[in-house]
Amino acid sequence: MSLLTVGSVAFDAIETPFGKTDKIIGGAATYIALASAFYNNDQKIVSVVGEDFPNEMLEELKKRNVDLEGLQIKKGEKTFFWSGKYHNDMNSRDTLVTELNVLEHFDPIIPASYQGVDYLMLGNLSPQVQRQVIERLTERPKLIAMDTMNFWMDIAMDDLIETIKLIDVLIINDEEARQLSGEYSLVKASKIIRAMGPKYLIIKKGEHGALLFHNENMFYAPALPLAEVFDPTGAGDTFAGGFMGYIASTDDISFDNMKRAIINGSALASFCVEEFGTERLKKINNKDLEERIEEFVALTNFDMEQVIS
Amino acid sequence: MSLLTVGSVAFDAIETPFGKTDKIIGGAATYIALASAFYNNDQKIVSVVGEDFPNEMLEELKKRNVDLEGLQIKKGEKTFFWSGKYHNDMNSRDTLVTELNVLEHFDPIIPASYQGVDYLMLGNLSPQVQRQVIERLTERPKLIAMDTMNFWMDIAMDDLIETIKLIDVLIINDEEARQLSGEYSLVKASKIIRAMGPKYLIIKKGEHGALLFHNENMFYAPALPLAEVFDPTGAGDTFAGGFMGYIASTDDISFDNMKRAIINGSALASFCVEEFGTERLKKINNKDLEERIEEFVALTNFDMEQVIS
Repeated sequence: MSLLTVGSVAFDAIETPFGKTDKIIGGAATYIALASAFYNNDQKIVSVVGEDFPNEMLEELKKRNVDLEGLQIKKGEKTFFWSGKYHNDMNSRDTLVTELNVLEHFDPIIPASYQGVDYLMLGNLSPQVQRQVIERLTERPKLIAMDTMNFWMDIAMDDLIETIKLIDVLIINDEEARQLSGEYSLVKASKIIRAMGPKYLIIKKGEHGALLFHNENMFYAPALPLAEVFDPTGAGDTFAGGFMGYIASTDDISFDNMKRAIINGSALASFCVEEFGTERLKKINNKDLEERIEEFVALTNFDMEQVIS
Repeated sequence: MSLLTVGSVAFDAIETPFGKTDKIIGGAATYIALASAFYNNDQKIVSVVGEDFPNEMLEELKKRNVDLEGLQIKKGEKTFFWSGKYHNDMNSRDTLVTELNVLEHFDPIIPASYQGVDYLMLGNLSPQVQRQVIERLTERPKLIAMDTMNFWMDIAMDDLIETIKLIDVLIINDEEARQLSGEYSLVKASKIIRAMGPKYLIIKKGEHGALLFHNENMFYAPALPLAEVFDPTGAGDTFAGGFMGYIASTDDISFDNMKRAIINGSALASFCVEEFGTERLKKINNKDLEERIEEFVALTNFDMEQVIS
């Protein structure tokens, strides 16, 4: 089934305790598309880059059957640029530079050929742009998932709440869930957030895994404990891309299938952090992924036989 | 199979965002014994209290077939007392008062009838006292598990390292694992710590669950996400007690059985935090526990069928 991803395609400059990059290619839509491509051969992107964006990554995406008709290339303008530095624990980072460039006035035009798309993944962008995309689709996709961040809660909460009303799956991290709901307990937060609209909520907890909430159901997917986290950039987008790629390819939005989708997203995210930027994602193959998923099964699987006295 | 628990039996005064207690009964050995009693009918305790310790809890323990011959009652002395205050996130606390009292010169005398015990759980105590217990047992138990804390790493690291050499399962939290190993990554930390002696390492991560390491095997048990954590005091001891009670009652130290033991320990710990002190643990029955374990199965269970394209 077809999956439309809307999100940034960007330059990043990253500093971690392990090293430093020059401008490398990043952006939510880039990670989402690379991850989703492991499952799904029918992907479309709506995004925008400047004239300075290299052809190389576009070729990588095309090779993976990603339809780039909706990727606007703005002559004479510059691609979105983000630069950040991770702290020693890798769980927090400082933003050093944000140059919006082409993203500042991004108008998410939906090519006619994209209408009727089955699934929609809204990567982190202004909630107003995310809402425009939903409104411009003539037919509602089977499932709309959305990422956002605390930045939008700080400066555009009303807009964010309007957009959240329209979606099915909200994917945010634990801090964001706490900020959005005003509740520290994630169980309580999940109820408040789902009352805002999304029937499904995924709360990412970084190295501690991810939680999926739907009605009275809860699923806890661990993260794979890693000896080394080299660069966390893009892990959340990779997770979301794996999740939605799996859902789209299986065309099954049951709770049980969402669990599988989360394990797949987690497996891909665990690769993402092993090298800078998209490097690792571009290198791994299906066999690597299958082996990693086996590790997740081994990590969490137990057989219960009770012996309460 | 028989389980010997060595640890404090104490008074605690606890303050959380939800309320405040006067002196209530606590102590590692108390929680461990209450938890272990859900599985195991052959428990022994080595500990010490003062003349001020009420009979009520001793009766509670006897009702659960806990042999108290090794519990010393010191005439004219006072029971160990700890008082602490939890911060709003419940993940950290300040110690307000520590009165060692009878623990200051605790000599862990092993009654003759305790010799030949099958399993040993060393609750958090000075590593020197923990080592004395091991040395005083004429026959080595089938499995020796041990808890400790950062306090002993700060003031008695050499002693701690000597004791750790002698045990099989070390049960500590993530911060303690980092301090003990000098490594931030828990995977790396686990290798360093296991090279110090224990073949098994359990790293508790509070609301994020627990990890079990053995050889090349890793198991990740989630914690049950709770709407309310009322009082975390004793949760770690309850976890350890459920773990060792399960192991002793099944008399099976395979990795697969340790996974089950961890799920059982996690389930009991999830009850412990629902009320102050030991209140909840004393009230729940086997049916409550079975239902809680079902919740853990539902929380983590997934069925993988791969669809990598």
